[in-house]
Amino acid sequence: MVWLVGKEDPRRAIHSLKVGLALTLVSFLYLLEPLFKGVGDNAIWAAITVVVVLEFTAGATLSKGLNRGLGTLLAGSLAFFVELMAGKAGKVGHAIFIGISVFLVGAASTYLRFFPWIKKNYDYGVVIFLLTFNLITISSYRIHDVLFIAQKRVCAMAIGCGLCLLMSLLVFPIWAGQDLHDTTVSKFQALAKSIQACVHEYFQDPDNKVVGAESSEDPIYNGYREVLDSKSTDESLARFASWEPRHCYRCPWQQYVQLGAALRYLAYTAVALHGCLESEIQTPLFLRALFKPQCTKVSEEISEVLADLADGIKNRCHRPYNDLSDRLHSALQSLNSTLKSQPRLFLNAEDGGVPLRLSHQRSSHCQGAAAANVSLPFLKIDEWRVKRVRSWSKDSDQRRMLRPTLSKIFMTSLEFSEALPFAAFASLLVEAVARLEHVMEEVEELGRSAHFQEFVANEETKSKVVINGDGGRSRGKLSSHGVGDSAE
Amino acid sequence: MVWLVGKEDPRRAIHSLKVGLALTLVSFLYLLEPLFKGVGDNAIWAAITVVVVLEFTAGATLSKGLNRGLGTLLAGSLAFFVELMAGKAGKVGHAIFIGISVFLVGAASTYLRFFPWIKKNYDYGVVIFLLTFNLITISSYRIHDVLFIAQKRVCAMAIGCGLCLLMSLLVFPIWAGQDLHDTTVSKFQALAKSIQACVHEYFQDPDNKVVGAESSEDPIYNGYREVLDSKSTDESLARFASWEPRHCYRCPWQQYVQLGAALRYLAYTAVALHGCLESEIQTPLFLRALFKPQCTKVSEEISEVLADLADGIKNRCHRPYNDLSDRLHSALQSLNSTLKSQPRLFLNAEDGGVPLRLSHQRSSHCQGAAAANVSLPFLKIDEWRVKRVRSWSKDSDQRRMLRPTLSKIFMTSLEFSEALPFAAFASLLVEAVARLEHVMEEVEELGRSAHFQEFVANEETKSKVVINGDGGRSRGKLSSHGVGDSAE
Repeated sequence: MVWLVGKEDPRRAIHSLKVGLALTLVSFLYLLEPLFKGVGDNAIWAAITVVVVLEFTAGATLSKGLNRGLGTLLAGSLAFFVELMAGKAGKVGHAIFIGISVFLVGAASTYLRFFPWIKKNYDYGVVIFLLTFNLITISSYRIHDVLFIAQKRVCAMAIGCGLCLLMSLLVFPIWAGQDLHDTTVSKFQALAKSIQACVHEYFQDPDNKVVGAESSEDPIYNGYREVLDSKSTDESLARFASWEPRHCYRCPWQQYVQLGAALRYLAYTAVALHGCLESEIQTPLFLRALFKPQCTKVSEEISEVLADLADGIKNRCHRPYNDLSDRLHSALQSLNSTLKSQPRLFLNAEDGGVPLRLSHQRSSHCQGAAAANVSLPFLKIDEWRVKRVRSWSKDSDQRRMLRPTLSKIFMTSLEFSEALPFAAFASLLVEAVARLEHVMEEVEELGRSAHFQEFVANEETKSKVVINGDGGRSRGKLSSHGVGDSAE
Repeated sequence: MVWLVGKEDPRRAIHSLKVGLALTLVSFLYLLEPLFKGVGDNAIWAAITVVVVLEFTAGATLSKGLNRGLGTLLAGSLAFFVELMAGKAGKVGHAIFIGISVFLVGAASTYLRFFPWIKKNYDYGVVIFLLTFNLITISSYRIHDVLFIAQKRVCAMAIGCGLCLLMSLLVFPIWAGQDLHDTTVSKFQALAKSIQACVHEYFQDPDNKVVGAESSEDPIYNGYREVLDSKSTDESLARFASWEPRHCYRCPWQQYVQLGAALRYLAYTAVALHGCLESEIQTPLFLRALFKPQCTKVSEEISEVLADLADGIKNRCHRPYNDLSDRLHSALQSLNSTLKSQPRLFLNAEDGGVPLRLSHQRSSHCQGAAAANVSLPFLKIDEWRVKRVRSWSKDSDQRRMLRPTLSKIFMTSLEFSEALPFAAFASLLVEAVARLEHVMEEVEELGRSAHFQEFVANEETKSKVVINGDGGRSRGKLSSHGVGDSAE
């Protein structure tokens, strides 16, 4: 357990050692005679500051340190002002004045903490403000050189803060911005894997499937869960990153958060796709198999685009948007043309649909058998409450056994309701492409505002083709030379 | 702005006043002579404790207060032990011993904070432990009655903690458990509205639609967003609630978190349904209209079941599970039978599909016109990158104008690809019902483990029927008396 926590992220061990080191250094203020003479008893406040301010990432430490500094200074000023006002009143007046001001400042600053903008950026600062204000104001009633003491304490705190900043910025710094960047890349990769695994499993023969996989170790589930759960982490990392000096002039952290949101919307579609797998109602395998190459192609393209985008972000370079987009669309077009070429749907208008329906029923002699099978999936809904599981019931296995023989028959009649689940699956894939477009736009925007470098293709061949003509189209012309000739 | 924050949740104003009051009370320790004589200078630590410990909910305050107490006690014990060990060494040995122990304890306890279980429940306690340990150990080098001072400070802190607990438990207490309960109810209601609005909009004529609605004020979006974003809030509320004494023996807060997760899964389906609305590819309105009553019925049932569940949770009573479930299933059955009765899908087997397809093309004379229209939706994919918006292009308006005339024709041929979006929509509705079942199970589980009361119907009629026979079935018998007679 102890080992695992460190193995998962070795920076944790480094951070722990950093805290230990910082505390030891700060304790020297107290332990070493010359240093103690300089700072005195208040050295203890430096230690308190280190414990409270030194956080995992540099951004968080900076945010806390600056919040602490700002809060302390503001509180000191206000306390000084109150002290000035209250000093003129008598002993009793002084006490009443302090009581009232403590009440008002306490209530007001607590209320302030509910403002979303304050809560997001300055919550800790307000707490420190309130703490320091109370400390100084209350003490001032009995101690008369309170401002002198406060001054010394602020100095000690400044030493503590300075040490924290040094430790977090210079000694093995852990940047929240880098973290945000890396988690964004890993989210892309996880989602790519998830979608591909999902489509792969959809077209897999359930008989050959490994049933033992637990839901918690499911690659599909783990992939999109990482994306779904990322909201608060992303936001806090972006918040901390915005305090960090490094890259600050060119890293639009909020764009990462927006990209995360776009990715999350894609992940919702992945969840819905996963739902298609887990649903008890399934389109028969032979029908699914008709569209397998095209659907797999689309999912592969989605995964590849996601992986390419991840690479692009990782190396901070711009991928040519149209290249990715064109590949997606050609895959989509091929799925579309297959969908259009295969099944045909007949609608009966209200006024006279009956005769033709009857003739259909006559013409397709397997109708009865199909109808008998077809009523199954929706009847099965009733069983959901008992077992909405992925284990395939014997009953449905038998159904699947029947299918291949049915498809051998000249023409097969299928209920709309039976094709429904596959239609949903295909439609969700299309929807996933649409949302991926949105993700690509956000990546484009990120690349623009973070000044990513232009992507330079590694393969010389590709760039040559680009020089020759205009990318994809010129390749098409080369392959069909005769036709290209006449066109030119 | 100031007004809005308070209006949104008046408890915020109450909490602010409570903090002000608590601070004033604690400042009396310093301001009033008799109290000051008892506590002395250390009264200031009581004020610090109040600022840091008094949180919005009672659970959070308890959690922080107990963490603080525990951390302080443990740190005190360890510091005492270290002091005992170090005291035997000489002056220099003492300093070295302190330095090493500060380093080790600092590194170890920081590492401890990365353990998920510690991070979740005792993060603040570990910080306080580290703080107090350093305070005592470092001070002990120069101050010899440090344990006496520490004792006095702990007393002052105990006073502060006690005041905080009194304030948060007795004066207008805000229970995290109640909050969790209420937000769960409101999530159900929001999701119910969202799904109903979504289905309603799907079947609405785009011409009559109000286009002006912004995405941020969209009832659909707002409804499911509340659920989607609830994870971290739920978890922290459950964590705080588990510290609260009230109902603690019978409120399974983790069950609320699980219920929230189930609800979130339903919300993902709502997002996908919303995606169907926003998609550029749309099934023609006349086809959608065929299924409008059934789909609307299903969505209404979903919303009603959600609202009923919300009511049940709100009033802490058990709804009879089967009643809700039966209603859902009858709606689903009616959708299913409509889906089955309406369109029919013909699959061409590879070996000989051509002849019949040709005959179909001959028989349906509107084929050409339909195909021309039909190729539109997928061509439109290319335009996505330009405008993936909900505003309806003129082009698609014209398409929709054409549809009604087409449906007048005796029989209409439709491409599979054109029915796809509706199929996805219907399938998602079915999926939503499946996930709702899961939500119902979780509510059932919640009701069981929280010992909700049995639901007693308000309408006397209903309870009478229940007494007469066995619920729904007996009503069926009464209405068809003649048939019922023969059956009995």
